[in-house]
Amino acid sequence: MPLTTIPNELPAVHTDVVIFTVQEARLDVLLTQRRHQPFAGHWSLPGGFVRIEESLEQAARRVLAEQTGTRQLYLEQLYTFGAPRRDLRARIISVAYFALASADKVGNTSHDNAWVAWHPAFDPPLLAFDHGEIVAYAIERLRYKLEYTAAAFQLLPEQFTLRELQNAYEVILRESLDKRNFRRKILSTQILEATDDYRYGDHRPARLYRFSHEAKFEGQARRLFP
Amino acid sequence: MPLTTIPNELPAVHTDVVIFTVQEARLDVLLTQRRHQPFAGHWSLPGGFVRIEESLEQAARRVLAEQTGTRQLYLEQLYTFGAPRRDLRARIISVAYFALASADKVGNTSHDNAWVAWHPAFDPPLLAFDHGEIVAYAIERLRYKLEYTAAAFQLLPEQFTLRELQNAYEVILRESLDKRNFRRKILSTQILEATDDYRYGDHRPARLYRFSHEAKFEGQARRLFP
Repeated sequence: MPLTTIPNELPAVHTDVVIFTVQEARLDVLLTQRRHQPFAGHWSLPGGFVRIEESLEQAARRVLAEQTGTRQLYLEQLYTFGAPRRDLRARIISVAYFALASADKVGNTSHDNAWVAWHPAFDPPLLAFDHGEIVAYAIERLRYKLEYTAAAFQLLPEQFTLRELQNAYEVILRESLDKRNFRRKILSTQILEATDDYRYGDHRPARLYRFSHEAKFEGQARRLFP
Repeated sequence: MPLTTIPNELPAVHTDVVIFTVQEARLDVLLTQRRHQPFAGHWSLPGGFVRIEESLEQAARRVLAEQTGTRQLYLEQLYTFGAPRRDLRARIISVAYFALASADKVGNTSHDNAWVAWHPAFDPPLLAFDHGEIVAYAIERLRYKLEYTAAAFQLLPEQFTLRELQNAYEVILRESLDKRNFRRKILSTQILEATDDYRYGDHRPARLYRFSHEAKFEGQARRLFP
């Protein structure tokens, strides 16, 4: 029979936000250092309790702006973590959000705010609560998105070489990819457009590519059906 | 600055479960009829409040068993719906779960339980709360899973003909697929294994296939990378 009365004892609802970037051949995650108990001094994901009048995404945007100065990222809901003992203070359920950023888009990390910093996502410091598990889950989602969608455009500048794109994939998949094979596959998905521009450097000029508008906004690289 | 005190005013946390099946060339969703206000008499997804000591998935399993007699389905977390005014009684956040079933696995729908019934997923009765939106979101997830994974095995018997598989895809994608093209694509993904058995009927015998063990448990039909 459907329950229609609201229980007396309620869990608290929190949101935590996982932001990734790729810089210096490393996948980084944005962390904040906790100043209060529990886990004072430990690093954790930016996060806070959902206010009674705001939506879940509004809460995620608010805590991200308050704690890191970051705005205008495309946030996607990642997963809701609700193990009964994940926080020993009380029953706290966390609705986690996820975003990709180029490192220059994220504020508050380079000046006087020692409480916010990028850390290596595959080798983070000891994290508070179950945030290590949340980061691991977000890495799986990121890999999946790279395999099936054009999501990498959010990590790269507007134009990039195929080598730069391959580097981003290698850093996130943690394996070296065969250059010919990578190029053949990525070009066959038709998510990239060649530009008329080249990157000049020590080697021979490398053509610059960009993601097609359609690939960015449809989000999907290839459909099996129909 | 991280919040560390738990707010006084807390939302309630609910779970709602979307179960799909394909029967008689139709995609159906399992609904229960509400006996209490609000929305008394309306159809809604099976669901209930999360108890303070149970995990989110435990809550989904419990309400499903209590309300529909259904057990042992593979439940996947779908999405958390948290618009502030989605329920006018109070702030109620719903963690939605999702499952596929062959129709014979779901109890309580064929005998004396008029409160639970299958309804057409693309043309359901007027649903309580935002459950219409939750069903629509679940259909998108289902289509995505059919395009990218071997999830259809959960809707079909152990062995099936390619025509039966194509029917399931057509019902869910709501379009007729070209037979040759469908066969070529589905066989190229290597998620199917031909058996030595045939279905005999009015037409010439049709070979029976099954999903490979690997496809079922990896869940993914094809990777773009590496």
